[in-house]
Amino acid sequence: MRVGIEQITDLSRGAAFLGTGGGGDPWLGALMLEQALTEHGPVELIPREHLSPEGIALPVAMMGAPTVLIEKFPSGDEAAAAVRAIERELGARVEAIACAEIGGINATLPLAIAARLGLPVVDGDGMGRAFPQLQMVTFHVHGNPAAPMVMVDEYDNAVLLNARNDDIERLARHVVMAMGGSAVISLYPMTGTRAREAIIPGTVSQAIAIGAALREGRHSSTGSVSAALECLRDSVHYGHACELFAGRIVDLRRETRGGFAVGEVRITGFDDHHATFEVIFQNENLLARDHTGRVRAIVPDLIVIVDAETGEPITTEGLRYGQRVRVLGVSAPPMLLTPAALEVMGPHAFGLDEPYTALEALQSVNT
Amino acid sequence: MRVGIEQITDLSRGAAFLGTGGGGDPWLGALMLEQALTEHGPVELIPREHLSPEGIALPVAMMGAPTVLIEKFPSGDEAAAAVRAIERELGARVEAIACAEIGGINATLPLAIAARLGLPVVDGDGMGRAFPQLQMVTFHVHGNPAAPMVMVDEYDNAVLLNARNDDIERLARHVVMAMGGSAVISLYPMTGTRAREAIIPGTVSQAIAIGAALREGRHSSTGSVSAALECLRDSVHYGHACELFAGRIVDLRRETRGGFAVGEVRITGFDDHHATFEVIFQNENLLARDHTGRVRAIVPDLIVIVDAETGEPITTEGLRYGQRVRVLGVSAPPMLLTPAALEVMGPHAFGLDEPYTALEALQSVNT
Repeated sequence: MRVGIEQITDLSRGAAFLGTGGGGDPWLGALMLEQALTEHGPVELIPREHLSPEGIALPVAMMGAPTVLIEKFPSGDEAAAAVRAIERELGARVEAIACAEIGGINATLPLAIAARLGLPVVDGDGMGRAFPQLQMVTFHVHGNPAAPMVMVDEYDNAVLLNARNDDIERLARHVVMAMGGSAVISLYPMTGTRAREAIIPGTVSQAIAIGAALREGRHSSTGSVSAALECLRDSVHYGHACELFAGRIVDLRRETRGGFAVGEVRITGFDDHHATFEVIFQNENLLARDHTGRVRAIVPDLIVIVDAETGEPITTEGLRYGQRVRVLGVSAPPMLLTPAALEVMGPHAFGLDEPYTALEALQSVNT
Repeated sequence: MRVGIEQITDLSRGAAFLGTGGGGDPWLGALMLEQALTEHGPVELIPREHLSPEGIALPVAMMGAPTVLIEKFPSGDEAAAAVRAIERELGARVEAIACAEIGGINATLPLAIAARLGLPVVDGDGMGRAFPQLQMVTFHVHGNPAAPMVMVDEYDNAVLLNARNDDIERLARHVVMAMGGSAVISLYPMTGTRAREAIIPGTVSQAIAIGAALREGRHSSTGSVSAALECLRDSVHYGHACELFAGRIVDLRRETRGGFAVGEVRITGFDDHHATFEVIFQNENLLARDHTGRVRAIVPDLIVIVDAETGEPITTEGLRYGQRVRVLGVSAPPMLLTPAALEVMGPHAFGLDEPYTALEALQSVNT
């Protein structure tokens, strides 16, 4: 499969959906990808099984504030520098670029980089959604070291971190600040053998499929939201998908704390104004509760807020008082639901007291 | 010349003197050096001219809060890791360790590291005193890149910075914070050819000589202070040295601002209470003024405050109300007084409005 200019809009919209409120505005990443594909042609998407056992798959991403990044990285040369630095450090050639995070802007950035470098991209990622921290990734859960990690800024300053996974988020967060708020990063370089078991498969093409469903649904009687849910139910990677609530935003609290956008949004039903629904977020949507206080979906399952009519995914920054929205629940890929994964990306990792309960179980209790 | 356990006290005290109020408490560094020399024997001190043209001279130092460092680095293994990381990055062997800063704790740390690695130490440094920032060093003034720079913490986390000299202080300062307040660093790796012109010669043995003069002066009629000034006047590296004022501390303002200890100390004469003298500092003593407001000494010339009786150097942190002190002026090594050097380490680099005027010129005007 090849990703060309005609897939960019679908990929961006699907990535915004999988961003579950976070991951940055994917339209900025789309512009960057469009420029790269216009100059260098389409990018080959390969299944993780096609990686050779000893070839290096290198996840790349941006870290920090997406808006800052876009101002700072018009050329993408920095990313190429990061890849070359990793190759020098490992003494091995990078065979394919990988996505660390399929949700939001980091779905398109790796493709733009791969186009410039003439490398394929692995169809998959390390989150199956968006998460706010470097260790919240299946690569870490599967025991791969994040190091050597490279961070590059717009002056070609490169910082190489050889640090324990426990320390690397803290170190890198400080370097990002010193770099002015954002950096292109590469980390968790893996051999094909390691990558085949640590990468969540199929999520890039899945994002494109979700985007296509949203687009096509607008012009059919089904509607965008139903088309996207249908597409996810057919997927081997996600499976369960349903609408949790529909209504109008009546309350919205949002603040920046410790570098995160934290807050909650309250929605009342279109018909029944006594039926309210609440979503708590920290960059990404973390927990959805109905008016009885019962949890209806919880991280790492995906909670997606979309425009009620168009199905357009809405980031937490894009939420507005009075918006007509639908709240959707999608079960996380099975690789995020092992005990080891839940320890890193489950409710407790976000300071939530509620235990993880699968979306399907929560729905059957409540309906 | 070899530096053994019997030289440690003289070196530490001389380094405290050259620290001009900053550079950290050298007694902590002395303990570290004592341990290293007890285990590994004395360290060879070589003149910069003995470096082979292509051999690498590697400055090492600590960055951050000295007290934190001592708690964190009992073994010195981290420093060895830093040296090895630089060797890997350069693809060349380090031939000798160098001092970046002869003032304070960074005079003894490189010797401790060299002892552990079985390497000689170049007799010289990059400041001839203490300065608060990474670019305030003759290595930078002579056009050498600070990169590749390595920073290592107590968990063996290593951060490699490949950044422009203009950016490296900011990047490294953030990494130090992430590392908990201090790190062992190596930077400005130079070939022998470059090192021979960029290193201020003879400052390690000079520090030992100052320390010896202070010690011996206590038991002679000359007194410690006169002995130290005599020793500096005989030196080819410093030259001019004089007492600027003697009296009792009557006023002291000290605060931490932007990570620096900034403030000023006011002193009144022992005999004439109307004669006051003021020293302004930012980590190091920067400017000395008499009661008429006339500048009597200014950075990069050295302003050293010592105990009036014992000649013991006093750091800005050690200043106390009521202390009986002498303020000494020592002209900086000529390598700090070129226009290029003054731009980096002169009064304006510290936000002072006064231009640099040589100590000798200021004294002849005032006496």
